[in-house]
Amino acid sequence: MNRMVEFEQFLAARAAEAEAAIARLLPERPADRLRDAMRYAALGGGKRLRPFLVMESAALFGAGADEAARVAVALECVHCYSLVHDDLPAMDDDDMRRGRPTTHRQYDEATAILAGDALLTHAFAILADPLTHTDPARRAELVGALATAAGDDGMCGGQMRDIQAETAPLDEKGILAMQAMKTGALFRFACLAGAILVDAGREDRQAMDTFARGLGVVFQVADDLLDEESSAEALGKAAGKDRERGKATLPALVGAGAARAVMAEETGRAEAALERFGERAQRLRQALQFAARRRS
Amino acid sequence: MNRMVEFEQFLAARAAEAEAAIARLLPERPADRLRDAMRYAALGGGKRLRPFLVMESAALFGAGADEAARVAVALECVHCYSLVHDDLPAMDDDDMRRGRPTTHRQYDEATAILAGDALLTHAFAILADPLTHTDPARRAELVGALATAAGDDGMCGGQMRDIQAETAPLDEKGILAMQAMKTGALFRFACLAGAILVDAGREDRQAMDTFARGLGVVFQVADDLLDEESSAEALGKAAGKDRERGKATLPALVGAGAARAVMAEETGRAEAALERFGERAQRLRQALQFAARRRS
Repeated sequence: MNRMVEFEQFLAARAAEAEAAIARLLPERPADRLRDAMRYAALGGGKRLRPFLVMESAALFGAGADEAARVAVALECVHCYSLVHDDLPAMDDDDMRRGRPTTHRQYDEATAILAGDALLTHAFAILADPLTHTDPARRAELVGALATAAGDDGMCGGQMRDIQAETAPLDEKGILAMQAMKTGALFRFACLAGAILVDAGREDRQAMDTFARGLGVVFQVADDLLDEESSAEALGKAAGKDRERGKATLPALVGAGAARAVMAEETGRAEAALERFGERAQRLRQALQFAARRRS
Repeated sequence: MNRMVEFEQFLAARAAEAEAAIARLLPERPADRLRDAMRYAALGGGKRLRPFLVMESAALFGAGADEAARVAVALECVHCYSLVHDDLPAMDDDDMRRGRPTTHRQYDEATAILAGDALLTHAFAILADPLTHTDPARRAELVGALATAAGDDGMCGGQMRDIQAETAPLDEKGILAMQAMKTGALFRFACLAGAILVDAGREDRQAMDTFARGLGVVFQVADDLLDEESSAEALGKAAGKDRERGKATLPALVGAGAARAVMAEETGRAEAALERFGERAQRLRQALQFAARRRS
C-alpha cells in the first residue's frame, strides 16, 4: 500500500477518535439550544489535523494519551469557535462549511456568536480541569500557551490583519507574518502540547516550534492553492472566494510556482527540525508531506 | 458625611485603580487596530463593581493586592467582552454604551467580534501567568472557575436563555435562574476570587457564594427597575428598551413592588451570609446597600 494512502487512513482513524472525544467532553443536553449549537459547530467532521498533531506530539514525548486527548479537544474547540465567528456575515459571510450550513445559517447569528464564545470558554475549562493533568503547573502552562496562541498576538490578531489586508495589501513578509498568527499559532500550540505535558527541555521545544512553523506555512499555502484551483464540490465550501474578496495569499501575490518554492523550502526546514527525534517523528514527517500534497 | 456617599467615593477611587490596572495589562500598541478596539471596549469607565468585589474579597481573605488586581482585570476583560458582543446588531443592537458609541459603532462589526474574542482570551492569559500567583494550583483553579462562570453553564448560557425568553416567556423562577447565569455567575466568581487565591476552606467559600448570589439578584433587579424608570441621559444608554423588546425581567413580570420585596429578601440572606466575617465584611455590606439603592 502506498505510504501516503496508509497515512490518510491513519489520519481518518485519528479524526474519528477526535470526534468521539469532542462528543464526550461536550455531551448532549436536553432542550439546550446553546449546547446544541456548540456541538453542531464542533462536531460533524473535518480532518482534525490539530488534534492529530497534539496526539503525535504527546506520543513523541511520552505524555499520556487520555491527557493529550483532552488537550486536543480544547484546541479543536478553539479552532471551531474561530470558524463559527469567521463565517459570520460581518466577517467572511459564508453559508456553507464542510458541506453543511454554517452555524449562523443553521441557527441564527446571535446563537452562532454565543456558541463561538462558549466554545472558546469551554476550551479553558477543559485545560484547567485536574483530569487534564495531575500537576497544576502543566495545566496552567497549557492555558497560558493556548491563550497566547489564540489571542491578539496569535489567531485573533492574524484574523484582524487578514481583514485589513483586503484594503491595505500586504507584501510577502506581511502575508507570512499574518498567516503565522492566523493559522500558524494553533499549529504551534498543537505541536508543543506534548512537550508542555511532560515539561520537556528548551531544545526539544525549540525543535517542535520550528517544525510547527514550517508545517503551518506549508498547510496555509497549500490551502490557498486549493482555494484557487479546486471546485466547490471538492472543498465542501465555496471555492475561489479568496481571490474574489482580495484576500492576501502568497499564490495570489507571487504566483503558484513561487508559492510552491516557499513550500519546498519550509518543508526542508521543518524536516530538519525533526531530525533529533529520529524514527519517532515519522508520522509528523508524513503529516508534512500530506499537508503539501492534499487535494481537499 | 453620609455613609453611602462615603462608600460611593471609595467605589469611585477603586474604579480609577481598576481603570489603571486594565490599561497596564492591556498596554497600547502602535498601529494595532485590534488592540485599540480591545482598549476602547475595556477602558473608558463604568462602576467597575466586579473588580471592586474581587479586591474586597481578596482583602477579606488576606490575599495580595497585586495578585488580586490581576484577577480583577481578567474578570473585567470577560465582562467587557460580553458587553461588546451583546451590543452587536445580531444581539441587542445597541448604539451607545456608557455615553459613547458601542465598539461596533466606533469600529465595525468584524473588529468588535474579534475584540470581544481577544478580550475573553486575554483574561485567561492573565490568570495563567505566574505573576497572578506563585502557586500554579491557585492559577489553574482561577482559570477553571472563571471559565465555568463565563461559559454555557454561566454567562453565555444565561444570555442564550435571555434571548429565548423574548419569544418563550419565563416564569419568576425561570427569570431568576436565567439572571443567576447571565449576571450572577460573574458576581460569584468575583466574590470567590479572594477565597481561591488563599485556598480558603469550604465554609468560607460557601458563605461568599451565598452572599454573591444575593448580591447578584439585588443588582439585577435594581438594574431592571432602573431601565424602566430612568432617563437615557442618566443611564448613558437607551432606557426602557427591555420592556420594548419584551425582555424577561422580574419587575415586568411581577411588578415593581413585588420585585422590591424579592430584593429585600435577598438582601437579608446576603447579609446573613456575611455575619461570620464580622467587621471585615463592612464594605461588602455597603455594596449590597449600594446595589439596591443606586440611581444610575
